[in-house]
Amino acid sequence: MGLLSEGLTQVVIPLAAVVGLGFALLQWFLVSRVKVSGGHGERNGYKDKLIGDEEEGVNSLEVTNKCAEIQHAISIGATSFLFTQYRYLSIFVGVFSTIIFLFLGSVKGFSTKSEACTYNTGNMCKPALANAFFSTVAFLLGAFTSVLSGFLGMKIATYANARTTLEARRGVGKAFITAFRSGAVMGFLLAANGLLVLYITINLFKLYYGDDWEGLYESITGYGLGGSSMALFGRVGGGIYTKAADVGADLVGKVERNIPEDDPRNPAVIADNVGDNVGDIAGMGSDLFGSYAESSCAALFVASISSFGIGHDYTAMSYPLIISSMGIVVCLVTTLFATDLFEIRKVSEIEPALKRQLLISTIFMTAGIAAVTFVSLPSEFTLFSFGTNKAVKNWYLFFCVSIGLWAGLVIGYTTEYYTSNAYSPVQDVADSCRTGAATNVIFGLALGYKSVIIPVFAIAFAIYVSFSLAAMYGIAVAALGMLSTISTGLAIDAYGPISDNAGGIAEMAGMSHKIRERTDALDAAGNTTAAIGKGFAIGSAALVSLALFGAYVSRAGIETVDVLTPKVFIGLIVGAMLPYWFSAMTMKSVGSAALKMVEEVRRQFNTIPGLMEGTAKPDYATCVKISTDASLREMIPPGALVMLTPLVAGTFFGVETLAGILAGSLVSGVQIAISASNTGGAWDNAKKYIEAGGSEHAKSLGPKGSEPHKAAVIGDTIGDPLKDTSGPSLNILIKLMAVESLVFAPFFAAHGGLLFKWL
Amino acid sequence: MGLLSEGLTQVVIPLAAVVGLGFALLQWFLVSRVKVSGGHGERNGYKDKLIGDEEEGVNSLEVTNKCAEIQHAISIGATSFLFTQYRYLSIFVGVFSTIIFLFLGSVKGFSTKSEACTYNTGNMCKPALANAFFSTVAFLLGAFTSVLSGFLGMKIATYANARTTLEARRGVGKAFITAFRSGAVMGFLLAANGLLVLYITINLFKLYYGDDWEGLYESITGYGLGGSSMALFGRVGGGIYTKAADVGADLVGKVERNIPEDDPRNPAVIADNVGDNVGDIAGMGSDLFGSYAESSCAALFVASISSFGIGHDYTAMSYPLIISSMGIVVCLVTTLFATDLFEIRKVSEIEPALKRQLLISTIFMTAGIAAVTFVSLPSEFTLFSFGTNKAVKNWYLFFCVSIGLWAGLVIGYTTEYYTSNAYSPVQDVADSCRTGAATNVIFGLALGYKSVIIPVFAIAFAIYVSFSLAAMYGIAVAALGMLSTISTGLAIDAYGPISDNAGGIAEMAGMSHKIRERTDALDAAGNTTAAIGKGFAIGSAALVSLALFGAYVSRAGIETVDVLTPKVFIGLIVGAMLPYWFSAMTMKSVGSAALKMVEEVRRQFNTIPGLMEGTAKPDYATCVKISTDASLREMIPPGALVMLTPLVAGTFFGVETLAGILAGSLVSGVQIAISASNTGGAWDNAKKYIEAGGSEHAKSLGPKGSEPHKAAVIGDTIGDPLKDTSGPSLNILIKLMAVESLVFAPFFAAHGGLLFKWL
Repeated sequence: MGLLSEGLTQVVIPLAAVVGLGFALLQWFLVSRVKVSGGHGERNGYKDKLIGDEEEGVNSLEVTNKCAEIQHAISIGATSFLFTQYRYLSIFVGVFSTIIFLFLGSVKGFSTKSEACTYNTGNMCKPALANAFFSTVAFLLGAFTSVLSGFLGMKIATYANARTTLEARRGVGKAFITAFRSGAVMGFLLAANGLLVLYITINLFKLYYGDDWEGLYESITGYGLGGSSMALFGRVGGGIYTKAADVGADLVGKVERNIPEDDPRNPAVIADNVGDNVGDIAGMGSDLFGSYAESSCAALFVASISSFGIGHDYTAMSYPLIISSMGIVVCLVTTLFATDLFEIRKVSEIEPALKRQLLISTIFMTAGIAAVTFVSLPSEFTLFSFGTNKAVKNWYLFFCVSIGLWAGLVIGYTTEYYTSNAYSPVQDVADSCRTGAATNVIFGLALGYKSVIIPVFAIAFAIYVSFSLAAMYGIAVAALGMLSTISTGLAIDAYGPISDNAGGIAEMAGMSHKIRERTDALDAAGNTTAAIGKGFAIGSAALVSLALFGAYVSRAGIETVDVLTPKVFIGLIVGAMLPYWFSAMTMKSVGSAALKMVEEVRRQFNTIPGLMEGTAKPDYATCVKISTDASLREMIPPGALVMLTPLVAGTFFGVETLAGILAGSLVSGVQIAISASNTGGAWDNAKKYIEAGGSEHAKSLGPKGSEPHKAAVIGDTIGDPLKDTSGPSLNILIKLMAVESLVFAPFFAAHGGLLFKWL
Repeated sequence: MGLLSEGLTQVVIPLAAVVGLGFALLQWFLVSRVKVSGGHGERNGYKDKLIGDEEEGVNSLEVTNKCAEIQHAISIGATSFLFTQYRYLSIFVGVFSTIIFLFLGSVKGFSTKSEACTYNTGNMCKPALANAFFSTVAFLLGAFTSVLSGFLGMKIATYANARTTLEARRGVGKAFITAFRSGAVMGFLLAANGLLVLYITINLFKLYYGDDWEGLYESITGYGLGGSSMALFGRVGGGIYTKAADVGADLVGKVERNIPEDDPRNPAVIADNVGDNVGDIAGMGSDLFGSYAESSCAALFVASISSFGIGHDYTAMSYPLIISSMGIVVCLVTTLFATDLFEIRKVSEIEPALKRQLLISTIFMTAGIAAVTFVSLPSEFTLFSFGTNKAVKNWYLFFCVSIGLWAGLVIGYTTEYYTSNAYSPVQDVADSCRTGAATNVIFGLALGYKSVIIPVFAIAFAIYVSFSLAAMYGIAVAALGMLSTISTGLAIDAYGPISDNAGGIAEMAGMSHKIRERTDALDAAGNTTAAIGKGFAIGSAALVSLALFGAYVSRAGIETVDVLTPKVFIGLIVGAMLPYWFSAMTMKSVGSAALKMVEEVRRQFNTIPGLMEGTAKPDYATCVKISTDASLREMIPPGALVMLTPLVAGTFFGVETLAGILAGSLVSGVQIAISASNTGGAWDNAKKYIEAGGSEHAKSLGPKGSEPHKAAVIGDTIGDPLKDTSGPSLNILIKLMAVESLVFAPFFAAHGGLLFKWL
């Protein structure tokens, strides 16, 4: 037994979650001190008088009022979209929870009798019907928490965007802190909420399950499924929404009408800004919550059938939750570095500051992992490994968690290298714009492909070490390690779309050129951090899916997944194809929706008199409606592909083919997801590099409107669906298919493979 | 024993090869009757007087002379490039054959003593040193035959291009026949040569090996390795050559200077036309020869350790060669349909005619397979299947071969659907050009991704059936089935670049608009057939690699390739990454070389007075040199990646990790290769669709020079490296790594996995 007693564990976990929630609220309070209501005039909430506005002759009160008005419109748009989406999702949740209950209930023919346990041999376990019921409840709770995470993120982001704009008047440092704090609110809310709900659920389920930990943690896997299935629709629906608006707005505004990005005359501009909040914020929040929930569930499930579970060592069993608790504390300390210890004075300091946050949290967390590992785990124990038991020492697990954590840092830094315009890869892409859009696209695609190499080696190394040390449990806790600093990661990630919105609001409110420059610089850093966030999301998704895959294989009772059997191999090759099928659907959806948006924007420019001159207001609502309708309609086919594949494959082709599909989609999806995100991020920043004209080289390509710049805009537009729709949705494809297979494994094992049985 | 005696087998195989060679020569003779020397004036070789030219006032003699001159320039350029390439390749071949000899010789410490056989237990086999020597010889022969196949293809293509142009004056049907006959020359030469050299090699090796068939067919695998390693450099080097020239020529000519494609004023135009011959013809010839040689070797190797080999049943053992012999006969009959039985009268009949050829050959070949199977195989026998023996009936093999054949047809037809502008996918892509290049690229990428679905299901189905029926032997003969109609497939495929060149020559020689329209129509059909050819190449590559993978696993003595072991899994994920790494290199190479070409073309336009006016001649030679230098320099890094990966992985990580790498690169590479080829083909034909203006819809997008057309040109340019460099090279990546692993398997099994041994 470890040093930490069961009683203390029961205190430490909820305490950390509560501290995290409290810290999030504190940050929210600090952000709220920036006032956007016009009444306060030029005082802006703080006592110090604003300077700068008067110099350029911009009426401060008018600007503030305008910001408030735009913020209100964005917030209303985002809220209304999410609520419409939730109506659709509630139907899905209703249907799918019924499927879960029926499929799992049917495993033992809906019998209510207790049965001999599978792993903890000799003991009696609760009936399969109970597991079906509690899995369904866990699914509902996971779905709810996922939606809540996305919703709260959207709320704080739409609350912070105008405040960031207004703070930009006081300097880039102030604006940075506002955006970063708001990101932190989201990060801590999500991590703390996820942990707390999971903790409470486990304790409530335990009231029924008592000593049957096998059944208890089997049911808990539903929590991960609920989280990820909401994330799927959040990412896909939100991604289509935001990119239909963005691409549509750019194609007419920037390319045809030659007006700047985020110009208030563009009818699609509100939809574009709403999109950042529902796609990049709410969608991403659900996604990372899903990863977090799934890696916890995978680790808990494997632990429950290992010596921790069989020996009823509660503290060791809760190791994944304690890691996450420590993560909240470490991130709390890390956040203070950005908000209080260092100050940003220059634009060029933003990116290094964000990178430093990653490094600080990683170093502190490594110490935190060591502490947690030695107090909560016994010095030696056995872990379940595909039918055998593997003897493991506690320091093995320290290495497993740490390697996941550091692999995350490597992925983050690599992503930064390939997507930041401070380095040669993006500069080369920008340079290729000299010869037009075609070379820009060729170089951009090549950059994305190349950017896959180091992350994949990092993931492979992490997998090899953690797998060798602690089998599938090692993989699961490595994923948790990568996600342990999720609060910091999300703060950095959410900072991106918030700054993007802030820039949009500055443009729309007609703020001065100087302010706009500051928000642009925040935004350029945000593109890189968003790419880093996506890197983390995909890296952790890879580890999580592998952990879930291992848990699935264990639960389905498969001993080997041999590539040399036809059943597995056809799964492997078809699985590797699925990310392409999925991407084809999501990209075409964005393309078609964008074409509709283009038509509408053109129509408004052609039919509303005075729109180009700025004397008439565009009809924003119609564009919002086009994005909403498109995203809700178009999210169904890719959603169905992901949700139905495991059910169809498991039922008709059996557990081995499904195992092949999971492995194939994992190894193929990771590559497309990383390359798509980085290609898109690089194109966006190549364009910003030319626009900013920060060096002789950049100046030779610019200014805005030059031929190379036009070529760069085309690349940026192509990258939009790659980096914000199809790329990040693939994370969820691979995770969700794995967790769904895990949840339905008993059914497939009992009744699956119908086709091969008939033949 | 089957009905066919050993003596008859010894007659049938070389006879078929000789008949194939004779038929190829006959076709060559028929093509040669079209005269390009100006002396014959308007008579053009045939007796009938040409009409049409005079009407438009084009001087026939002058045109014919000009065609001859251009043809000469292209032929000289292509020959000189290939000979320069061969100098580099001879160094590679020298080094690599030494490596083969040393690595394989070291397996038993260069001992010259005979040893107990591995599979044919109880008997004595030749020493490992002899296998090392004969493998090296087989490697050299394979390399030579591969180079010869590519070279002869290039020769006939550069012989036929101007002849096709001249025949276009007599009508589209005549031109079609000339191009098609020339493609057939290449197809039959390649198939017959490949078969003949393999047959002779086996018989010569047998003089030494005698009864040791295990060692004999083990050594023969070197033939496949030689073939594919030459194909690698042919495809990559040729691909970079052709696309650097093509992209460079288009970027300045079409986009900046607004002159037509293939305009003689463009300095890169000769390099572009040379490129078609060295990349699409010579490279593709080597590639398909490689597939053919490898699938034969894989099948022979598996057979040699099955009951055929152990029981010394020569006819059954030669089953793969007899299938190929039958393929030559079937293709011969099929060719007559295109050249003699049907006649093309209208442009719209070209594509259906080519499709019909595929269908006819597939139907006839199915009957051929049945005949071959029942006369050459005993009704029941056992096949080696990963350590066990599997009882198989002869009609199982009929299904294995046929399913490969028909899967090829499905892939071909699917490719045609996604890349021909007669169907909605390409028309949708063309339509998306309305809103500019960005939507064109988004829709094109989505189309490519989507086009993967059906081929992968077809491949998966073929794998499942043939694997279930006859284990790895089934896969190998399924691949042979797909390749059995290679002569027809190659004729259709080579038809594409020949027509492309013919169009270029028509433009450069200043032929009339009507002629140009005819060659354009031939060329548009050629784009589709080239895509079909690539579909076949990748489909067969997938089956071939899997067969080689199986043979490798058998030879390395691996019992299972379990995804659930860390060694295999890291191989799988890193293997799935390799196609991305490889594509990043090849695409960036094309991009960089194209930038250099652009600079040179711009320089010439700016500094040579009278060039734009057509009064001065451009300096073609410098552009040829840029392409040559770029391709020779840039083919080395991707070549090294492919050649070194198996050696490094096998030596340091061992046979299991290498098995994972092979499986990963196979399942991932297939997808990228198919999607890249089809995306590129679709963009090219979307552009041609707009240019041709054959429907109301197409007219609304055109004409040449309209905004949608400009967007389409950008897509076409991006597609060039995708469809002609990185996409098709991936076939070779997956095949070559597999065959190299197979050849080196004894070494890896004996001395590999150093890193894991040290840890």
